[in-house]
Formats: sequence, C-alpha cells, structure tokens
Amino acid sequence: MNNTANNNPVVRACMIIIGNEILSGRTQDSNLSYLARELNELGVVMAEARVIPDIEQVIVDTINECRAQFDYVFTTGGIGPTHDDITADCIALAFGVELYLHPQAEEIIRRRQVPENVMTSRLRMARVPVGGELIDNPTGGPPGFSIGNVFAMAGVPMVMQAMTSTLGSKINGGKPVRSRSIGAYLSEGQIAQSLSDIQNRYPDIELGSYPFYRDDGFGVNLVMRGTEVEQLDIMKTEIAAMITDLGVESFEDAEGN
Amino acid sequence: MNNTANNNPVVRACMIIIGNEILSGRTQDSNLSYLARELNELGVVMAEARVIPDIEQVIVDTINECRAQFDYVFTTGGIGPTHDDITADCIALAFGVELYLHPQAEEIIRRRQVPENVMTSRLRMARVPVGGELIDNPTGGPPGFSIGNVFAMAGVPMVMQAMTSTLGSKINGGKPVRSRSIGAYLSEGQIAQSLSDIQNRYPDIELGSYPFYRDDGFGVNLVMRGTEVEQLDIMKTEIAAMITDLGVESFEDAEGN
Repeated sequence: MNNTANNNPVVRACMIIIGNEILSGRTQDSNLSYLARELNELGVVMAEARVIPDIEQVIVDTINECRAQFDYVFTTGGIGPTHDDITADCIALAFGVELYLHPQAEEIIRRRQVPENVMTSRLRMARVPVGGELIDNPTGGPPGFSIGNVFAMAGVPMVMQAMTSTLGSKINGGKPVRSRSIGAYLSEGQIAQSLSDIQNRYPDIELGSYPFYRDDGFGVNLVMRGTEVEQLDIMKTEIAAMITDLGVESFEDAEGN
Repeated sequence: MNNTANNNPVVRACMIIIGNEILSGRTQDSNLSYLARELNELGVVMAEARVIPDIEQVIVDTINECRAQFDYVFTTGGIGPTHDDITADCIALAFGVELYLHPQAEEIIRRRQVPENVMTSRLRMARVPVGGELIDNPTGGPPGFSIGNVFAMAGVPMVMQAMTSTLGSKINGGKPVRSRSIGAYLSEGQIAQSLSDIQNRYPDIELGSYPFYRDDGFGVNLVMRGTEVEQLDIMKTEIAAMITDLGVESFEDAEGN
C-alpha cells in the first residue's frame, strides 16, 4: 500500500461482491483472490472488498460510497435474468441515470434462440445504464458493463474470469506490485522483534507474517510486497540471514495460510 | 433479510476480515462462509462483510462505522504477535480506551516456556482493551476478546473455528434462518418470470437463483431462506411443481455455484 518514490501513485480498487448466497455461507467466494491478482498485473491494488446482500438501498449506497473513495470499483454478481439480479438497476440509480437496451448486448443475447417469454427475461441482461459501455464476455454469453469508474461483472467465476481478461485496455494502472516470500518452521514470537526492525528499515515494502499449522509442524511464511524488485530481493536476503542466525533452515515455498 | 411476523426482529452481524494477504489474492478467505453458517444457528444473520488492509486508520474507521450499524461485529485476523498484528490496538482506539495485559490471557501465554525476548513478543497477544472480555480459544493458544458488540477472533481458520464454538453464551440471536433448495437443468431465463411471481407471493422468504455450469450441462439451483419452516416447505413444493410443468426433472442436491 506504499507509494513508491518515482511519482507513481498507487491506483486503488474496491470490489463489491453482491449476493445473499455469499453472506449466507452457502457459496464460497473465489472471485476476490482471482481479481486481486489480475488487477495487480494491471498495476491496480485491491484496497478493500465488501460483501453485500441483494438489497437495493444497500447496493446503491455502497456503490456511491466506494466509487467516490476508490479509483476503480468492480462488482460481481446480480447481472443475470432473474428477479434477484438487480445490480444494473442499482448502478443506474447510483449514477442517477436510466437503463436502456444496449443494441450490441441485445444482438448477442438474441443469437440464442429461445421462446419469446424466455427471451423477455434474458433481455434483462442487455440493460445498461445510459452512458455505460459493454465489458466483453469471451464465453459468448451476455456482456458486463462499465459506467464511470464502476465495472459490473458476472458472479459465476468462469464468466467473471473471462470478462476480467478483457479489462486491460480499460484500466490505467500504476506499477505492478511484486512479492517475495520465504518460510521457516519457527513461531512468530521467535522472530517478531527482528521482523519489526526489518520492516522499519524498509518502509516502502509491506512485510506480512502468516503463521501456518501443518501435519509436519507449525511455522510462518513471510511475504514482502512492493513495486521495487531490487529492494525486495535485498530485503529477502536479509530475512533469510536472520532465520539462518536462529539456526533454522528457511524454505522458498510459501504456500499455506 | 425479512422480519417475521412474530415479533422476532432480525439480529444482524457484520464481519470485518483484516489482512493484506486476503486483498492481495495470496490467501483465500474461508472464514466468512464458516462464521455465517455458525452465526445463523445462533439466530444471527450475516448482513455484510468487509475485507480491509492492515492500515490503522482504515481498521479504526471501519470498526466504528460497523459497530454503529450492526448488532454484532466480528473481526478476523491481526491478533498475532508480529508488527502487522494491530487489531487490538485499533479496536482500543475505536473505543477510545487503553490496552492492558489481561491476567488470564497472560497466564495462558506464559504456560508455554520460551526465551524471555520471545515471551515479550508473545505477550502482545495478552493485550485487551479496557472493558473487554476474553473469547476462549479451545486450541490452547492465546484467546480472542470482545468489547461492546465487537468480537476479535483469530484469522487462522482452525483457531477461528475453535473460538466460534465458544460464542453461544455471548450472543443474543433471533430465530435461525432455515433453507430449502431445489435444482434443475434449466436456464434461468426459462423460469425467471415464474420465480418472480412466486417470490411476490412469499415476501417473507428470500428466493435466490444460482446458475451452475457443469460437465454434464448447465442448470440452476433455487434456494429459499426464511425463519418459517412450514412456509419454506410449501414454497418448495410450488417451485418443484413449476419445474415439473416445464417437463423437466428437479433434483434435491443443490451444491455447486
């Protein structure tokens, strides 16, 4: 989350995950971690995420709060054809504009032949706020849309990931954040003071400490994140030396929690 | 999200997931779905969740906003012994109180013999805001704590789940929300209008429609949620009949997205 010295301001995004099914615990969201990693490659830092229910006023208020506060806002969920899909309506309300049937979205939806009553429902998915643009959907299904700094994407991971792959040209990011990680079978308490000292010497790099508990023992993964690769490598060497000084082997693999 | 008619107001919770590792995409949160289901059994509805970074001002502001807005607030993460564990400090700041070394938490932490410099770091985990109470940690590790309507729990899922198992006596919930679900190999568009009609006839039950895409075809899971079991069963029967009328078989299993 640190600014770098070279006039390269951090570009910050907020994700709004819309859906009762995530809040009820029925569905486990996997879109946040995916989008965070993809945005990072575009030089955009995921700075916050919110999970909110399918309630109009909550969605409208959250969108307005977040689009004022962050450079980009990405919503997932609620853009299907059923009664509980109200994201487009809510974004239009938030921007104070009407929805209209986007001709290109309509054309895509009409490609699939279905009975007219079914088409009526499906055409809900062609509604875009006035002033909005489509987000391509490489799966061939209905597109998403963007308006201002708000991007409305599908909740189904496969579709959301396809839409994300088309975002590159629409996003003005900064420098991508890079990471280095190193693990050791140590308790956090053993290294807490040293880590704090090292963090203080590298204020531009974010140093996270993540304990893990595995069948073969407990330990910690140390993750450095920042835009300056050289600094990251120096810091990693320093942390590796600190671990060696404790008489413990460090390892490169940093999976786990 | 609906109030029931029998004077049983909905008790609403917000979860605050604290940690750069979730926002960077490195770690996939699994605590939200777990806590949502456990709270539901205590009659508490998860009404919102936020994922925020390890930044003091963001944590303090989010806690103050959420504790004013929801009946309960649950935080996960940031209660370990390292420099990036600042949840206790932030909650104390949010409540305008000091931290103190809680004698019972200190006693638990001192049970494990470690060198004095390591103990100094570990004792960070015994700091509790003045006026707070401990949340037991059945794994034998350091406890969490609560103050007012805010509950600070561990981020490591195993520990968080153990702490959650002790919450029952501390929470005053309403009636648990129950669910019924039914699936069919249909597109959402085919049933959108019927679902909307059915939802309108059962305003106290939340009806969600969740499309899935599997190797053997695409379909939809329909999930009904509400506190009144009898109503749920009647509504489910009605939806099953609607699917049968389309000449499609429904199924009970409602896993998938």
